[in-house]
This record gives sequence, structure tokens and C-alpha cells, in this order.
Amino acid sequence: MMATLNETHDPALRSWVESAHRAGTDFPIQNLPFGVFRRAGSQEPWRGGVAIGDQIVDLAALHRAHPFDGAAAEALAAAAGPTLNALMALGPAHWGALRLALSRALRQGSALEAAVAACLVPQATAELTLPARIGDYTDFYTSIHHATNIGRLFRPDNPLLPNYKWVPIGYHGRSSSVAVSPQAFRRPCGQIKAPEAAAPVLAPSRRLDIELELGLFVGPGNALGEPIPIAQAEAHLFGVVLLNDWSARDIQAWEYQPLGPFLAKNFATTISPWVVTWEALAPFRAPLERPAGDPSPLSYLDSEANRRAGALAIELEVALRSAHMRAQGLPAHPIARTNYRYAYWTPAQLVAHHTVNGCSLQPGDLLGTGTLSGPAREQAAALIELTEGGKRPLELPSGERRTFLEDGDEVTLTGWCEAPGAVRIGFGTCTGLVLPAPTV
Amino acid sequence: MMATLNETHDPALRSWVESAHRAGTDFPIQNLPFGVFRRAGSQEPWRGGVAIGDQIVDLAALHRAHPFDGAAAEALAAAAGPTLNALMALGPAHWGALRLALSRALRQGSALEAAVAACLVPQATAELTLPARIGDYTDFYTSIHHATNIGRLFRPDNPLLPNYKWVPIGYHGRSSSVAVSPQAFRRPCGQIKAPEAAAPVLAPSRRLDIELELGLFVGPGNALGEPIPIAQAEAHLFGVVLLNDWSARDIQAWEYQPLGPFLAKNFATTISPWVVTWEALAPFRAPLERPAGDPSPLSYLDSEANRRAGALAIELEVALRSAHMRAQGLPAHPIARTNYRYAYWTPAQLVAHHTVNGCSLQPGDLLGTGTLSGPAREQAAALIELTEGGKRPLELPSGERRTFLEDGDEVTLTGWCEAPGAVRIGFGTCTGLVLPAPTV
Repeated sequence: MMATLNETHDPALRSWVESAHRAGTDFPIQNLPFGVFRRAGSQEPWRGGVAIGDQIVDLAALHRAHPFDGAAAEALAAAAGPTLNALMALGPAHWGALRLALSRALRQGSALEAAVAACLVPQATAELTLPARIGDYTDFYTSIHHATNIGRLFRPDNPLLPNYKWVPIGYHGRSSSVAVSPQAFRRPCGQIKAPEAAAPVLAPSRRLDIELELGLFVGPGNALGEPIPIAQAEAHLFGVVLLNDWSARDIQAWEYQPLGPFLAKNFATTISPWVVTWEALAPFRAPLERPAGDPSPLSYLDSEANRRAGALAIELEVALRSAHMRAQGLPAHPIARTNYRYAYWTPAQLVAHHTVNGCSLQPGDLLGTGTLSGPAREQAAALIELTEGGKRPLELPSGERRTFLEDGDEVTLTGWCEAPGAVRIGFGTCTGLVLPAPTV
Repeated sequence: MMATLNETHDPALRSWVESAHRAGTDFPIQNLPFGVFRRAGSQEPWRGGVAIGDQIVDLAALHRAHPFDGAAAEALAAAAGPTLNALMALGPAHWGALRLALSRALRQGSALEAAVAACLVPQATAELTLPARIGDYTDFYTSIHHATNIGRLFRPDNPLLPNYKWVPIGYHGRSSSVAVSPQAFRRPCGQIKAPEAAAPVLAPSRRLDIELELGLFVGPGNALGEPIPIAQAEAHLFGVVLLNDWSARDIQAWEYQPLGPFLAKNFATTISPWVVTWEALAPFRAPLERPAGDPSPLSYLDSEANRRAGALAIELEVALRSAHMRAQGLPAHPIARTNYRYAYWTPAQLVAHHTVNGCSLQPGDLLGTGTLSGPAREQAAALIELTEGGKRPLELPSGERRTFLEDGDEVTLTGWCEAPGAVRIGFGTCTGLVLPAPTV
């Protein structure tokens, strides 16, 4: 069930919100991503909002104005509260009805212009929080390039494990440490053991890294014991955010055998605040590309629709700005650029795999794609890959060099979609700032 | 901060609830575990309850009677809702006040007898649900005997990994598939690859196993970035349940590299419904036992109090009853018996380790201990250990043999504490039933 193109994607649409047409805006009328906000510094209730241009449509205020009927009104009511879980639970028919109603209300000439204009809040005056209460957070490993690059550092002769081309590898992450951008977090401490040392020490991580990922928010869930077939999988996905899975490589190296990463990851995970909906991404679908000779997926991971357009073409960039660069007035420096279309496994395959054993997904669950490295070196989406395990430092415009992150470094992820015949849409930003470790 | 003995532990205490004194009861007046219940088959609201003998004190009804003052009344109000998260968030002073007030109200001669008697619901007429909304579920690996037994199956020459005696190994589990006993669940399907096969197949697991664990419910949480020192760790633990971490060994073997178990575990995790409080366990503390020559824990994992009495002596048993045994009227057959005191890492060490990097715990989070195998063969707490990887079947009283679980098998965990000068307390039961796999 893939979202199809409809009037909300029409590149000719124009909004009466002027800023929705500024060059480079992430939020034209064709996007309409959802978030949860309030006026910065206020004690107002958190409530749902939709970004357009440099404004937010306050969905709680709009709900009180009762502009819509039927499924759109039901979806609007569900989006007016302090989390979007209730909206996510409703499913594609409701999401589509609300998107269509909002699209029409925001168009030039809409009879609802005055009513909706009264509900606008400038983004510059708002603060954003997590769009949903995240019950469970799963992180996948969908880039074969990342898996190969990382594997090469650990196992030069045998970088890719035998299960990779069969199993969409994933593991459980930590929900409590997922926060919305901008996030400032302390460098984590943990057990670190130097290769030659007899014993580990407790110390601040010295190999603090990023992982450029996307996060998929789950819509309607499934009952425990009831797998979701791949043909229905996309109806369980509400939308997409940018995700930075901060990673302490030295802690990871010592702790991860035999049960996987734990303290190396669960100190902070940053997501962008605006959820770009599954429907908004319809113009940017891409075929699943598999190298010739790779095995066909098992049938529960395979469908004609998934092969034809199961992937998403989302362009992604990582930029780094050190404290020194901020002091010098230098902008953030791009260090990697990649695209989600290189992923080996599609979103539908992740949902089908996650539930094939009966595992239950719930509205608001978050599925990370894993680090989205592309095939080229400059498309590597983590410092450990970009610097070849810390051996080849990056040069910054300030004259500084980086293998891993220093205190005061700020990392920003951006993402956007472009396609012929479609208006460019963007994801906003996902920014995190590294604070010094606490004293141990 | 260890709970100390007080009048609520006095073995001479007698309750006016007669069944609290029956031989073998798990719930004497010295226990007073918390759960969430309603009358079976009703549409009543779920609410907190305390087990005594074969009765439940309905905490919502008791709250309406306003029998207590101060912290006890605040804690009672927090326990009257559909989850115990609010009670768990309050911390030891409130928990202790409520326990003391309940203990006094339930004693023979209490002036509150009539008021409390009006709030009793027979356990036989009640159904129980999860005691808390579990935000995150972490599973540890605290039995060195289990780690060694499992390691020997995979790496005969090097069973215990070098990090084991330094790092309280843990990983993130799946909250959504944690359910309360009795749980019936379908045998999971997943990718299984025979050693000689060129490709995996999707099939029902044929190596379905149990893992006998305990689950620790987190009380007050910590802010992201603020570690919990070991000296304060136990003040963040509300209580303990039995936990069966059902595991599909064949799915696990194929999927677990490099990020750990995923679909092999997240189809079902069963916990017992009654949370035995940290304070109720005070008479059953035990010294942390480490073999001579093992390294001392790093300082963040070490304290005098933890060495002296950081462990808990909880006797544990696994019993199996097949469909054939039920048809024959045979009781469940004990297949393993062990004790939590054999764990290599204490609860306080798990909390200190989990948060040393700044990871935030939240009220209602669940920490699994990992499979609690003891040093002897019959103390192995999983079938893969008991049967040496499926090579030595167990004999059942029905004449059947078992390597791994068959459809219709019912597994029951029990646990209890006994010590000189203390009244025996128990955990109730944790039961799960294996249903046939769905067709794939």
C-alpha cells in the first residue's frame, strides 16, 4: 500500500502563507509535516502543529475552530493533544483526509484563510518537543556500505557477515534517551580498555561519533502474535525524521560482545522535530536496487511493489561546526553527503521483518534505519568510516582536524527530496551539541 | 541505601486475614506485594492492589475510604490508578510509609479491620495485568554460570569473553511484548538456517527455550546525563518479579551477529503479576560472592555495602507440564532449581552501570537479570544448558522427552525467600503456554 500522488502533491499549488514559497524552504504546501510545539519559554500545553514556510499551524487552535468534517476532523482532534500518538494510531485514510483538508485550507483563495491565519504561530517563537511518546525504539542496519565499512575495521578478511543479505539486521535501542533537536548532551563516560591494557578504566569516551540515520514513526500497530505482511507494511508507517545515533566507539568496542551495543549508544539519540509524512514522500519513491547475483529476499520480504518503488530517495548531509568555528563566525562544514536510496532494505521490509515472529509494533514506535552510508567514501555517514577508524583526520575550515568529536562540536543533519515534476521538500534540521563529560 | 529491617518484617506479626497464615502461602503479612487488577471478566477500571493470603486489598477502594495520612496517603493515592508508575516514582520514603500503614491495618486488632475488610477482593475472582507501563526494558547477563555454559556451546575453547568480569553486560529488550502471567503465545516464526544449508528459510522455531530470570522494576528515575552512584542505586528500585525471557535459539543463532538478539526474543516475555517490594526483601540480603582472584569491580561498581549485602537470596524453580501431562492429570515437573545469590553482579551494580554514561531510567522501567543459572548442572536455567544444546533430552514423568519446548507445553516459574528469623515470602507464579505457530 504505497501512498499515491494526488492533488496535495501538485507542484502548481500556492499557499497564502508567503514564506511557503521562499527559495530553499523545507516546508512548502506540498510538505505539511507534523510536530509538537508550544511558544518558547511559555507554560502553554504542548500540542500538535503543522509546519508551513516559517509558520506553524496550531492544530489545537484549529481544532477549536472546527473547520473540517468527517475523518479530517477526527484526525485533527487526535493531533491537538500533547503527543501525536493518537493521530499516528488512526492510519492512512485519516492522515490523508487531514492532509487534504489542510492543503485546501492553506491554498490561495481558500475560504478558510482567515480562520487558519488566526491559528498561525511563527516557528521562530516556538519550541518543539518529541512528536510522540516513543514506546519502543528499534535501530536497523540497512546500509550494506556501512556494514561493510565497519566490518572491514573489525574483520578485514571478512567484512560482511553471512546473514547480511538475508536478514534485515536490527536491535533494540533506548527510548528514554531519544530527544528532539536541538539537543545538548554530555560526553558519556564508560568502561574503556586500551588494546594493550590489562584492565579497563572508567573515563570519558575519546571516540565519540555520529551516525546519520532516518527514523520512521510507526502508525497503527499490530497485535502480539499477528505479523504484518509486506503488502500492508507501509500502511503502518506515519512518517520520517532525521536521526543522529550518537555512538561512543571506545565504549562500544569493549562492551558489545556478545549482546550488542548498550552504553555506547543509549546516552543520547537526537531526532528532528518535524515528521515528514509518508504521503508527502510519495513523489520521491525509488526502485530497490540490488547488485546482480545477490540473493532474492525470502518471500515475506518480497513484493512486486516493493521492488518497483519500495525505496525512498532522500538526500542527506552531515555538517560539523566546532566551538572555534562558531567563535570565528564560520558556518557549519559539510563532512558527508549520502542518500537513503542506497539502503539495502526498504521500510516495508523492516516492518515485515520486525513483526514476522509476532512482535507487536505500537503507534509512536520509532524505527531507525541505521547509518546511511553510500557507496563512495565521501558518502560515509559516521566519522569512524570517514576517518578510517581515526587514522585519517578531516580538515576543518578553521584549520582544526577531527577524527572523532571534541567538546563544543555541533553536528547538524539535513535532508531533502527533489524529483522531476515535484516541489522540493525538506526535513528541517537535526542538531546536537557535545558538552564536556561530567567529572568521574 | 539498603532497606533495613523494621516492624513490618517481624515474624511474629499476625493478620486478621486468615489465609495469610496458611502453610505455604506466598503472601503473608510480611510480604505485601503490589499488582494491578480488576474482577475477572468485568469492565471495571484496572487499579492497584496488594496481595495478602488469598485476597487482594483493593487500593482504589481503600483510597476512597481515606484511612491513612501523610506520605502513606499520598502513596495510596498514587497506587489507586491503572498503573503503578506514579507509586514507583515516589521513592522509598513513600513506599515505606504505605507498607507500614498497610501492615498495621492488616494486623490482628487493627482499628481499621472493618474498613480494610470491605476492600478485599478474592484473588480467585480477579484478573491481573502489567503492574506498570514499561517505558524501556533492559536485559542483563548477570549469571557467570549461564554466560559460561552458553559460551561453551559457541566457543568451546574460550567460553567466557574477556569483558565479562568487568562489565555488567546488558542490552535493550522489547517493552511491547512484555506481558503478565499467565501468557499464551504463538511459537514464533523466523529465519532459520541449517548449518549445511546454503540459504535460510522462514519457519517456526524448533529450538524454543525458556530463560528463568528476575525482573527489577525501577522506581524514581534520573535525568539524562546524571549517573546514579552505586550508594544511591537501590533507592531507585521498587521491587522484583519473576521473568521468563522466552528465546528461539535457532532464530538467535542466525540473526545475532553483530548487534545481538532481536526476533529471537521479542515475541514474548512473561512476568509474574505481583511485585515483591525491595523493602519486603530486606531479610534476604546476601553477600556478593566473587571467586578468589577475580578482579575487583571498578570503583563506580563497588561499595562496602554492596560487597556486604548487595546480593539477594531468592530461591527459584522452573517446572514444565506438557499437554499430555495435563491430560493425564500429572502435575508440572520441576526441571531446574537455582538461586539469585549466584549472580555475578548485584542489582545496585546494574543500576550504577546502566546510568554511568548518563542514560536515563524512568519509573516503571524493567531490568531483567538475565538467565539465573547456578554453578551446578541442575541449576541451569535454560533448556539449551540443561540439555547441552539439545543433545541430552530431559525425561518427563509422562514418558515424553524434551530438548526444546513443544506446542502445548506450559512452563511455570516460582520463587521464594527463606531465612532464619524471617517468615517465608513468595513471588506467586509466572506461567506461559506455547501455542502452535501461525501458518507461514
